[in-house]
Amino acid sequence: MKRIGILTSGGDCQGLNAAIRGVAKALYEEFGDNVEIYGINDGYRGLIEGNYKRMKPENFSGILTLGGTILGTSRQPFKLMRVIDENSVDKVKNMKDNYKKMKLDCLVVLGGNGTHKTANLLSEEGLNVVSLPKTIDNDVWGTDMTFGFHSAMDIAANVLDCIHTTATSHGRVFIVEIMGHKVGWLTLYAGIAGGADVILLPEIPYDIDSIVKTIRQRNESGKRFSILAVAEGAMSKEEAKLSKKEFKAARASMTYPSISYRLAKEIGDKTGQEIRVTVPGHFQRGGSPCPYDRVLSTRFGAAAAKLIVQKQYGNMVALQNGKIVPVPLSEVAGKLKTVPKDCDVIQTGRDIGICFGD
Amino acid sequence: MKRIGILTSGGDCQGLNAAIRGVAKALYEEFGDNVEIYGINDGYRGLIEGNYKRMKPENFSGILTLGGTILGTSRQPFKLMRVIDENSVDKVKNMKDNYKKMKLDCLVVLGGNGTHKTANLLSEEGLNVVSLPKTIDNDVWGTDMTFGFHSAMDIAANVLDCIHTTATSHGRVFIVEIMGHKVGWLTLYAGIAGGADVILLPEIPYDIDSIVKTIRQRNESGKRFSILAVAEGAMSKEEAKLSKKEFKAARASMTYPSISYRLAKEIGDKTGQEIRVTVPGHFQRGGSPCPYDRVLSTRFGAAAAKLIVQKQYGNMVALQNGKIVPVPLSEVAGKLKTVPKDCDVIQTGRDIGICFGD
Amino acid sequence: MKRIGILTSGGDCQGLNAAIRGVAKALYEEFGDNVEIYGINDGYRGLIEGNYKRMKPENFSGILTLGGTILGTSRQPFKLMRVIDENSVDKVKNMKDNYKKMKLDCLVVLGGNGTHKTANLLSEEGLNVVSLPKTIDNDVWGTDMTFGFHSAMDIAANVLDCIHTTATSHGRVFIVEIMGHKVGWLTLYAGIAGGADVILLPEIPYDIDSIVKTIRQRNESGKRFSILAVAEGAMSKEEAKLSKKEFKAARASMTYPSISYRLAKEIGDKTGQEIRVTVPGHFQRGGSPCPYDRVLSTRFGAAAAKLIVQKQYGNMVALQNGKIVPVPLSEVAGKLKTVPKDCDVIQTGRDIGICFGD
Amino acid sequence: MKRIGILTSGGDCQGLNAAIRGVAKALYEEFGDNVEIYGINDGYRGLIEGNYKRMKPENFSGILTLGGTILGTSRQPFKLMRVIDENSVDKVKNMKDNYKKMKLDCLVVLGGNGTHKTANLLSEEGLNVVSLPKTIDNDVWGTDMTFGFHSAMDIAANVLDCIHTTATSHGRVFIVEIMGHKVGWLTLYAGIAGGADVILLPEIPYDIDSIVKTIRQRNESGKRFSILAVAEGAMSKEEAKLSKKEFKAARASMTYPSISYRLAKEIGDKTGQEIRVTVPGHFQRGGSPCPYDRVLSTRFGAAAAKLIVQKQYGNMVALQNGKIVPVPLSEVAGKLKTVPKDCDVIQTGRDIGICFGD
Repeated sequence: MKRIGILTSGGDCQGLNAAIRGVAKALYEEFGDNVEIYGINDGYRGLIEGNYKRMKPENFSGILTLGGTILGTSRQPFKLMRVIDENSVDKVKNMKDNYKKMKLDCLVVLGGNGTHKTANLLSEEGLNVVSLPKTIDNDVWGTDMTFGFHSAMDIAANVLDCIHTTATSHGRVFIVEIMGHKVGWLTLYAGIAGGADVILLPEIPYDIDSIVKTIRQRNESGKRFSILAVAEGAMSKEEAKLSKKEFKAARASMTYPSISYRLAKEIGDKTGQEIRVTVPGHFQRGGSPCPYDRVLSTRFGAAAAKLIVQKQYGNMVALQNGKIVPVPLSEVAGKLKTVPKDCDVIQTGRDIGICFGD
Repeated sequence: MKRIGILTSGGDCQGLNAAIRGVAKALYEEFGDNVEIYGINDGYRGLIEGNYKRMKPENFSGILTLGGTILGTSRQPFKLMRVIDENSVDKVKNMKDNYKKMKLDCLVVLGGNGTHKTANLLSEEGLNVVSLPKTIDNDVWGTDMTFGFHSAMDIAANVLDCIHTTATSHGRVFIVEIMGHKVGWLTLYAGIAGGADVILLPEIPYDIDSIVKTIRQRNESGKRFSILAVAEGAMSKEEAKLSKKEFKAARASMTYPSISYRLAKEIGDKTGQEIRVTVPGHFQRGGSPCPYDRVLSTRFGAAAAKLIVQKQYGNMVALQNGKIVPVPLSEVAGKLKTVPKDCDVIQTGRDIGICFGD
Repeated sequence: MKRIGILTSGGDCQGLNAAIRGVAKALYEEFGDNVEIYGINDGYRGLIEGNYKRMKPENFSGILTLGGTILGTSRQPFKLMRVIDENSVDKVKNMKDNYKKMKLDCLVVLGGNGTHKTANLLSEEGLNVVSLPKTIDNDVWGTDMTFGFHSAMDIAANVLDCIHTTATSHGRVFIVEIMGHKVGWLTLYAGIAGGADVILLPEIPYDIDSIVKTIRQRNESGKRFSILAVAEGAMSKEEAKLSKKEFKAARASMTYPSISYRLAKEIGDKTGQEIRVTVPGHFQRGGSPCPYDRVLSTRFGAAAAKLIVQKQYGNMVALQNGKIVPVPLSEVAGKLKTVPKDCDVIQTGRDIGICFGD
Repeated sequence: MKRIGILTSGGDCQGLNAAIRGVAKALYEEFGDNVEIYGINDGYRGLIEGNYKRMKPENFSGILTLGGTILGTSRQPFKLMRVIDENSVDKVKNMKDNYKKMKLDCLVVLGGNGTHKTANLLSEEGLNVVSLPKTIDNDVWGTDMTFGFHSAMDIAANVLDCIHTTATSHGRVFIVEIMGHKVGWLTLYAGIAGGADVILLPEIPYDIDSIVKTIRQRNESGKRFSILAVAEGAMSKEEAKLSKKEFKAARASMTYPSISYRLAKEIGDKTGQEIRVTVPGHFQRGGSPCPYDRVLSTRFGAAAAKLIVQKQYGNMVALQNGKIVPVPLSEVAGKLKTVPKDCDVIQTGRDIGICFGD
């Protein structure tokens, strides 16, 4: 009898249930009645507290299109890691103890960057771990794509579409703030898909004058509106010179709720135009996964099950060049996949006249 | 030869182009080559400045599903009215002069409450005016429904749907701020459609303790999340006692960007739970009209054309008990259609356990 | 203790679960722990066979946006009625016996026309029955609107939208077959919302030459494509002269899978143009209810619960002039709400140049 | 002065306008006023007949999300090739003559497999040609992905989603016929995304008994419904033994409108269950491109412009391992990219218990 635990950790995103279903269906297909799956509640917290339930095959039916996660999640990995630094024994020990108490053969973990740090830690501590890369940010190292990203792109692009019609009718400048504190994948792709005129990413510090110039040129050429797709983590060239700590402090003391509002003030002052801000926020990570994400999640899920069959523990399933491959957790943990400045999608943006503010 | 001018005024919404197309197609169907349609640019501003263009039949093709307005709009009606109070001759005179210079038989106006004040003024000044009620707020007096409302409801309900999956997964309290400074129709309908647990409308001042109690009861009954649909103009019982002027002043000096952020702080303090805020903003008024709005806009448009045929000027087309009827502009102007506290949709909300905060 | 049975019967549609949730939430809100709700499986068949389950409050959570029906359904009402004619005792007696065995205070029935015949029969036989009008056809007598209709309209209009872009690009004639064997509400509304050029309803027999003339005129005016929205039950003027029996026989012996294919052949022969047919079929009745239907279903559900509280049995909840009212089952049963030829939506279609084939 | 011609050929799909816009925007960005773009109407037919128009920059604005093609298209490439075989001089000569008369520096062609045969022919005949791979079938050799595919997948998966709710409620077997006469990419991906239980592709001949067995097993395990995603070109093992010619003849003489209806009859006879068929048809290739396709189209468009800048004629732009690369037309022409039986997406399907009928 195989005993498999499964948990979802970190901020939720679309496709978690599709991936869980993929893992489970593939395990049942492989092992039939000889596998027991345990759903661990609310991410690592459930493993720490021994809070879990035995799942039945029917629990995994009908969840392919369901948003969120049937297992619940909690956003504690980073805090958890910090606590471990100070007082490490307890939480990690608890997780190891519960893993053993549950007599698990493998722990399947679905999460983003923080989650993978912990997954790697548990793997180093001797647990059998297999992981799946989920996040709307697409910033997990080692995989070309994470699930959730395309669903969030659909939503963010749809917001840009709707804003377009209002911007055109009123002749206004609009800023749409798109999720992504550290990386700009979502803003880049949604921005191009949504026809943004200016795209600001954390990876490319902006010069306010360059943005203003673009807006002015559009006005002069008879286009009455401009749309800016701005990542939460977009920063000015001046800010880019700050240390991480200084930057954090500067942002914390900023009088605006977010960068978009600051930009709106600055651009409004310089152009005399009315600037409107839209912040779709968590809306971007909820709802049904798009078909792309359902397929990717299912492929990841089935591949994770296969790693368990082959006892290839300590790996994350990843998409590389169109194929699903295992990547060692040690290679993934602690890294961030940012947008390379020379990537062809940025080049495409420049080719069609989009301003990146630099 | 009939000469008809048409303009869209005020904040844009879905269905404007569908309505414009309806007016035009019905006029061409009726008068054939014996009608000329003039598109007046950017709302009343275009009429004041004599900025317009002769439209051709093909300009009205393919715009049924197009968001925004092909005529452009401007949000000046209230300012306009103020200017008229002080220095009335010029702007109104300009509009009258241009109407005559254009040799119009009728001016077709698409707009909300502010627009209708001006439309009535122009009608009283002797111009032939026919109007259509557009706004996502559904607050135009004299009609059961305005176009734009259902499209905005679709968007706001979709935001609530997406937030639902995240709220469920994380066990959080979410506030979704829905457009509506003066009336709560959109928040009420979207809130019920989106399964909100608490709905706050401008029409029903809230008691913060009542909201907190509802959240606590949900927690105690094992429901880990709560979703609040909050109108921009929601106000507390204390605020409801203020005069209009005092209320405005209080809000202007509020340290939060909007009521939702203040509620988040208050509820967070009282419950100790994490409260997240989502503000879809202008996203709610953009994009393609939903099929309901396309049909309603088209019916309104064709009915407006019929009023022109019958020379029934000075009227707004309205939906009453499922039928399209004319309503005199003088009855519409200056009034606001708020949500009656005893309306059956509010009662339905109470019947299924939704808290209205009172 | 109140004991309430609930069943969904006939072809499924969007909003059934939302309505079930509305009934249940309102009953729990009213009676608290003093009500027991029994879900009867697969429509009347479950009542005949005594196949049901006790529901718990949590069964009604999270189903607002879920398509289909959690209770299952079966399409047997008409067959049932026929069997009753020949051999009536058994089935009706079984239903009455099971109602008594379950000690029900009231049976809540969600269904369309066939369902309401049986509901009325059971009411006449002495059972306490309250019903809700569901169908994408909107053909239930006594109510201005049924739930399901607007969701199906959204889907059918979306199909027309997509076909539009292909038709325009290729310069083709397209036929989209829309559900509705007896009534044309769905085809009429979706047709206008989707910008169809020709709309054929069962209520308005068509003349093929009139259709061909419209297509030719469009071609001559430079429009390269035409789109026909055709109800399943559309019929020619010749067919309209047949008796019901003759018509059925004629259709049964038709060599085409449906009327659309026959029209395609006839129009193709007369115009020499390529005609394409799309049949979205059951796709139109599935998936999540649109926000409009969620609100309507919830209002109907809460109103049905209120009828139970007030012991106003023998009624269907209905929408009349924007208000929810009870209508005696005896008034509803056996009638069909067809599209009146003078209704303003048809007039709107004519006003904007849509051909109805007559 | 650069003079560039552009045409779209073959069946339309989503993303054509986005790609056209990408080409144009990138050319204007590169050459400024030193480029003239000529839109050739209705595919190769326009080149043969010399039917084209000078485009202006504003023609390419606002078309990113527009379905269809602003240039029109015609489905003539194969017929064209046949005519060339018999009587080759005329049509090809006409195209060459018009290319010269228009003084083009390059012809940009957007199309699928047939289109690429002709593109290669024209290239071999000495014209400067650059092409982009468009088709919902994703069957163009040399590129991992074509644009249109993901938009069609979204639609087909959505149809499956909606059918799911009805199938579940009624306990029925449903067949959804998905576009693809020669290849099964769309059916495979939409089938997995939509949770189909049986997926039939042209690449994997099916055994009817294997399908029936799957349906029976599902019934026995308590699942009351089964959903089949069937490619238009699905064929039985018996049919797979036929020569191409024999197969065509067999299908032509088939009494069913398509394979789905034949399967419905066969499965119905063997299981005694009610089988319903849905054929979304051309609906799958229309409407707005999804955000994925908008990004891919734009990348392809900008890359095609770059090939023109670099005078790298005779190439198709392609996606390979996440990068946009040129592929010689001679390598693309006449080939078909079918689904490899060992591809991991098929394996994923098998892993989660989907039946491929073999």
